[in-house]
Amino acid sequence: MPETKHDVVSIGNAIVDILGHCDDAFLEAQGAPKGHMRLIDSETASRLYDAMGPAIEVSGGSAANTSAGLASLGGASAFIGKVADDDFGRVFTHDIRAAGVTFRSSPAKGGEPTARSLILVTPDGERTMNTFLGISPELGDEELDPELISESQVVYLEGYLFDREQAKAAFRRAAQIARDAGRKVALSLSDGFCVDRHRSEFLELIKSSVDIVIANEVEITSLYQTTSFDEAAARTRQDAELAALTRSEKGSLILGNGTAIEIAPAPVDQVVDATGAGDLYAAGFLYGVARGLPLETAGRLGSLAAAEVLSHLGARPRASLRELAQAKGLL
Amino acid sequence: MPETKHDVVSIGNAIVDILGHCDDAFLEAQGAPKGHMRLIDSETASRLYDAMGPAIEVSGGSAANTSAGLASLGGASAFIGKVADDDFGRVFTHDIRAAGVTFRSSPAKGGEPTARSLILVTPDGERTMNTFLGISPELGDEELDPELISESQVVYLEGYLFDREQAKAAFRRAAQIARDAGRKVALSLSDGFCVDRHRSEFLELIKSSVDIVIANEVEITSLYQTTSFDEAAARTRQDAELAALTRSEKGSLILGNGTAIEIAPAPVDQVVDATGAGDLYAAGFLYGVARGLPLETAGRLGSLAAAEVLSHLGARPRASLRELAQAKGLL
Repeated sequence: MPETKHDVVSIGNAIVDILGHCDDAFLEAQGAPKGHMRLIDSETASRLYDAMGPAIEVSGGSAANTSAGLASLGGASAFIGKVADDDFGRVFTHDIRAAGVTFRSSPAKGGEPTARSLILVTPDGERTMNTFLGISPELGDEELDPELISESQVVYLEGYLFDREQAKAAFRRAAQIARDAGRKVALSLSDGFCVDRHRSEFLELIKSSVDIVIANEVEITSLYQTTSFDEAAARTRQDAELAALTRSEKGSLILGNGTAIEIAPAPVDQVVDATGAGDLYAAGFLYGVARGLPLETAGRLGSLAAAEVLSHLGARPRASLRELAQAKGLL
Repeated sequence: MPETKHDVVSIGNAIVDILGHCDDAFLEAQGAPKGHMRLIDSETASRLYDAMGPAIEVSGGSAANTSAGLASLGGASAFIGKVADDDFGRVFTHDIRAAGVTFRSSPAKGGEPTARSLILVTPDGERTMNTFLGISPELGDEELDPELISESQVVYLEGYLFDREQAKAAFRRAAQIARDAGRKVALSLSDGFCVDRHRSEFLELIKSSVDIVIANEVEITSLYQTTSFDEAAARTRQDAELAALTRSEKGSLILGNGTAIEIAPAPVDQVVDATGAGDLYAAGFLYGVARGLPLETAGRLGSLAAAEVLSHLGARPRASLRELAQAKGLL
């Protein structure tokens, strides 16, 4: 096995979030499914942007947020994703590197613009994402960087990559490189609608080449087409070596080593914006797993990281997660 | 006089703020004068951006922030400024229109990029701005829109425009159009260093063609080259018909109609980010003046609007200033 240089390399869409507020009626008028991610084309993105209120721009992307969280916890974290040579591409590249994440990819010359997600936050703190993927799914051999993958303890793959053929091919290639190098493969199911679109392929992947599954309640029940969380959890135990299932204010459930551990959510004074909560849970959990910490500690790190991003606008941590975790005696 | 369609048309640099945090040592290492705005070229902007931490992007620009504040107070507000056809230009255009401000300018084709200001916020909430002006100062006849200026009660000009010859020419032309149409001309002195660079021209302008002066303590004492605020205020009374002088936590002083009115600052729980506080004071004050409210009310609206943006990151109001002012019985 090559020397381990990173705890986790995350592979996913490289997205800048355009975050604004709206009410439920606006979501309905725009046909945006509340709490979910929908893919939109360039024209719809322009139309929706024109209709929405003032916004702020913050680097995002599900696995990219996870990689920033891992670095904030003190992990050696790397990210693979594709941006264009435009303002948003420079913003994404700056922010992920400034967060302490290894990001080697160069921007594409020409072609589609950098991906952006128009994220509408409702008064309840829930976020609804409308994503124009642009250049992001065009992950070629150049970006995939087999050396980086082979040298990382865990490769973490975002389920959203399955939404485009080229990214899906990169996803499979990355999983193969990781397995050949004796590394662990982790998969996030990303979104309930995303699971709907790719159910059979996700199931096959989990059984054949994924070691660690990360999903929320909507995603895991969608995967197993059941309304019962308990049933979905039982099925997950059969199919996956290790899994973390998140349930919002009900906390999370970790399944692995023949045990099931319930983790309470970390307290949040006020949920300002749910964007990135799942991504940051994954960061805490994967940090714990990569460092060989007890699974309960890994889960509690996940809850702590999720609570931090729930308390403010944007999907990347503002405080040092390592210091927060040390204050709680978790690290 | 043509029909009045807007309370205030603001003319200034069209800038997207890139807001990040740092400590005083970082400012020193970068040669950035704390609390001030300095102009930087494209290369310095790249270097500084690489060195600074993760950031968020929010539309800014001094007079543009004022125009957003005016709209938030319920004023009919317009803005004139120049952006490029790039991501940041689209962000600026979206945000100012979404704030309810009339912004007719089309993006420039080719040439320099949209202006950006790398704003570093220190733990005390003070902001230090490093601005790359890009296309912004290239305000030509096309952007200046004489009809819009003639139809606005007040034309509000940002002193920063004096930092580039082409913008300075546009500034003078706008003031002339306004005066020919029988409108009021308001000027912000923008920044102490800016006053240093353009002292004699500012003084000549104030005496010859400016009706309303807006300045903070550093700027007005720099203008009159005195260390005494009282002396600077006395000189201002001689030169300007109406003035609002802001003094941070000491509140503000309004000079006009032969009186001097002291305005207390509005309370702020915690100063998170000083970016835009002066711009928003100007919004409240100019709203009051344009609507013919008592000068004391105009000043209190200024304090209220400043307090709102001091309480969060970014220079544009997040809450409805009109509702806040109504709750205080000011509107």
